[in-house]
Amino acid sequence: MLSSTFQSRFNKIRSNKIFEIFVVSVILLSALVIGVKTHNMPSQFIYLVSYLDVGITIFFLLEISIRFAGDPNKIRFFNNGWNLFDTIIVVVSLIPIEDSELALVGRLIRIFRVLRMVSVVPELRILLNSLIKALPQLGYVLLLMFIIFYIYAAVGSTFFSTINPVLWGDISISMLTLFRVMTFEDWTDVMYEVMAVYGYSWLYFLSFIFLTTFAFLNMVIGIVVNVMENENAAERLAEGEPTIADLQQQLAEIKVLLQNKGS
Amino acid sequence: MLSSTFQSRFNKIRSNKIFEIFVVSVILLSALVIGVKTHNMPSQFIYLVSYLDVGITIFFLLEISIRFAGDPNKIRFFNNGWNLFDTIIVVVSLIPIEDSELALVGRLIRIFRVLRMVSVVPELRILLNSLIKALPQLGYVLLLMFIIFYIYAAVGSTFFSTINPVLWGDISISMLTLFRVMTFEDWTDVMYEVMAVYGYSWLYFLSFIFLTTFAFLNMVIGIVVNVMENENAAERLAEGEPTIADLQQQLAEIKVLLQNKGS
Amino acid sequence: MLSSTFQSRFNKIRSNKIFEIFVVSVILLSALVIGVKTHNMPSQFIYLVSYLDVGITIFFLLEISIRFAGDPNKIRFFNNGWNLFDTIIVVVSLIPIEDSELALVGRLIRIFRVLRMVSVVPELRILLNSLIKALPQLGYVLLLMFIIFYIYAAVGSTFFSTINPVLWGDISISMLTLFRVMTFEDWTDVMYEVMAVYGYSWLYFLSFIFLTTFAFLNMVIGIVVNVMENENAAERLAEGEPTIADLQQQLAEIKVLLQNKGS
Amino acid sequence: MLSSTFQSRFNKIRSNKIFEIFVVSVILLSALVIGVKTHNMPSQFIYLVSYLDVGITIFFLLEISIRFAGDPNKIRFFNNGWNLFDTIIVVVSLIPIEDSELALVGRLIRIFRVLRMVSVVPELRILLNSLIKALPQLGYVLLLMFIIFYIYAAVGSTFFSTINPVLWGDISISMLTLFRVMTFEDWTDVMYEVMAVYGYSWLYFLSFIFLTTFAFLNMVIGIVVNVMENENAAERLAEGEPTIADLQQQLAEIKVLLQNKGS
Repeated sequence: MLSSTFQSRFNKIRSNKIFEIFVVSVILLSALVIGVKTHNMPSQFIYLVSYLDVGITIFFLLEISIRFAGDPNKIRFFNNGWNLFDTIIVVVSLIPIEDSELALVGRLIRIFRVLRMVSVVPELRILLNSLIKALPQLGYVLLLMFIIFYIYAAVGSTFFSTINPVLWGDISISMLTLFRVMTFEDWTDVMYEVMAVYGYSWLYFLSFIFLTTFAFLNMVIGIVVNVMENENAAERLAEGEPTIADLQQQLAEIKVLLQNKGS
Repeated sequence: MLSSTFQSRFNKIRSNKIFEIFVVSVILLSALVIGVKTHNMPSQFIYLVSYLDVGITIFFLLEISIRFAGDPNKIRFFNNGWNLFDTIIVVVSLIPIEDSELALVGRLIRIFRVLRMVSVVPELRILLNSLIKALPQLGYVLLLMFIIFYIYAAVGSTFFSTINPVLWGDISISMLTLFRVMTFEDWTDVMYEVMAVYGYSWLYFLSFIFLTTFAFLNMVIGIVVNVMENENAAERLAEGEPTIADLQQQLAEIKVLLQNKGS
Repeated sequence: MLSSTFQSRFNKIRSNKIFEIFVVSVILLSALVIGVKTHNMPSQFIYLVSYLDVGITIFFLLEISIRFAGDPNKIRFFNNGWNLFDTIIVVVSLIPIEDSELALVGRLIRIFRVLRMVSVVPELRILLNSLIKALPQLGYVLLLMFIIFYIYAAVGSTFFSTINPVLWGDISISMLTLFRVMTFEDWTDVMYEVMAVYGYSWLYFLSFIFLTTFAFLNMVIGIVVNVMENENAAERLAEGEPTIADLQQQLAEIKVLLQNKGS
Repeated sequence: MLSSTFQSRFNKIRSNKIFEIFVVSVILLSALVIGVKTHNMPSQFIYLVSYLDVGITIFFLLEISIRFAGDPNKIRFFNNGWNLFDTIIVVVSLIPIEDSELALVGRLIRIFRVLRMVSVVPELRILLNSLIKALPQLGYVLLLMFIIFYIYAAVGSTFFSTINPVLWGDISISMLTLFRVMTFEDWTDVMYEVMAVYGYSWLYFLSFIFLTTFAFLNMVIGIVVNVMENENAAERLAEGEPTIADLQQQLAEIKVLLQNKGS
């Protein structure tokens, strides 16, 4: 009985708009603290920042506790990926780290606290979910692109590794070099160097650029078409607008009415 | 009575097509004067240009006065953002500036007179408004992109600041460097430098490029879909074309007619 | 009478598919001759090429004569832009040029003969016409972009001309530099140089990149939407498919039939 | 009789999902072997890899034999481009090559075995087919683009070959240089060098960039529109949804019913 009252009170707090804005503000402050730390600062300022850091960590602990206490179903709470992410970030940042090597890990954890913005602001969560949903349909195009990269990298490291081992030494480095060519980053330097030995190697580079650009374009167009179709289908369903099939149904009924009267 | 006649006469002038073309010509002339000033010129030419400058300033003063005098509602006049912008530009360029430091400000004001083109040509005003209208829907994507930038910049300035403080010194500079990487501007130079110390840092750069490219693409596609939907909806409304729902209504009426006769 | 028979015969020739393929082959040959000339060749080869050149010129003269003779309306012939273009190219390449300075002009004319491909192959003519038709709708966006460029160039040449006169010397050079920044070509070099003097000039460059990218994107999207709408409208017309309005008309007729019988 | 039982058994094997996954795994392994070979390895590892190589070759031979034996129509088997491709790759990799020059060819053949992934995974085959189907509609745009490149290259090699023979020596090299300009790769370096001699050559470069960008954009938009239309048409057919024309047919029938009763 008592716990239930507590729970509903906590639930009220966490659904409160002002509470949400306050949490967002603290996240922004924690982001700012991270940013400020990368600048050179006078020593008393460092002091202030480290106190702020402790304050933010405690606040995050309180906030996650309220959210947990306010949830009617404690087990389902951690099934939600965002809740789990939030909890891990908060718990790990609680561990006191003095060791200089682990200190870097501690700083990284603090940086990822900025990602909590996504878990707190619903609009960002929706946006990220839609981005993630668009990924699978890219799957096979990415696989095809990887095959193209792999074959070209294998050819490149076979023939060009003696010309410039830094760029074509083995298949992994060659793939990185090809990605660079795909982004047009000083790709002519890479090509001219190879062309000095193999005069026709421009065929290799130009065919690679055409293939990857073409595959990339198709990927983009595929997503556009897919997104628009889903959008259209969703819209039609949402509007509940009668379809042509509905009209056909009605016409058939009228015809039956007419024919019945004729008899 | 008298003021009303004046007002309608001024109103006639400012709606006149020839007057509009003349204003556009003067704006073009003022743009040309700005351009010419940046070139080296013989001294008598400088003289001519400074006279032209005074002439243009006076003309703009007259034009804004006519527009103000011709407006039936004097208070509403300044509620329009474009009118306010025009007036400020004209008034500020009236202030005589001799001081060498303020002279630069005066030159800037003269440059912004070119923007008056947008406030005078209606087609440009419509175009700019539609551009501005497209901005809010980008809001959350831009926020998400900023979060990606911030996290990567925080990681970058934490680990790479000792490698090259010019590029990774603090979080602000790191964000600028990451923007450079996003535009593919000599990004491999930045990466190779870091890879010499951290061999796996290509993961950092490639994941950043994939994330930002993917988010950017989604943003563009989102706008395309949105614009097309608005366009389609606007078209359907404008055409006043009967919808399927209208047909359904008519069919229902016919059915009632048939059934009534049956009884 | 006689001229009419000749005309119809010439008309038959020029509509002949084999004749068209032959003309395209000669154009390709003339293109090849231009290309070959830019390479170093043995002297007897130069001889052969110059004979080929004379042959091609004569063939083109014959071809345009046949097309002219076969046209029933001689005056309308030159109203067609492509015919006029073809005739000028052919006539000018007839003028014997020995002078070394004019020889360059002669070579240029020969190069433009490759463009005759567009005037001969109907599919290319249609494609180019559709490209040209897409231009006007870009008009105002290009004007807006020009205004953005002009203002930024004016600001740039005012403040940065002392830093690097080669890049920011006057407003024309500044616009070229800004175009370079827009294509992301070594834009950070340009920015870092300026940032050494004005620390906040990254605002200038980043706002410029955002504005032009945004305007460019809007331009592209605008064209896509426009093209698709025209396509859809053309398709609907071509199919002669009944519209919803047609159905409404029919329903109204049925209603009248029913009501008349009721009375 | 006996052969028929064998055939159906082999057919069963090759349609087996587990068999497909196993084939894909072997292809991945063969890709890995290629990749590993480009790295420096200890000698016993090289031994292992060469044994693996023999194993993979034998497996591929078995797999293609099963596929061939399982096909009811042996002649049609080689009409399928993918089957032919698979067979050639497998047969050629059987030829023992000791000669150092031919060894490279052998390595290339082994690299192309990765492409067998496309012939085995149906989804990739569909994707590649749709990419290939999109090519013809690009035909004329690519031809137009080639004409633009050819004309600009001819002009470039005529005027600029004395400035920098490495970039503008003949028409082929000029086309490569122009492709570089189109990808914005250090294009200003190319332009500034030429501008030092011909002050107005920026017109040449800017017009080239505008033309090719514009043509490229149109190509992309053309594909988008085409793909979406095909998609829509296919969808409508697949759904078997009644069209407006169907409704019109039904309405006409009702009208006849009404008029018949009137008489």
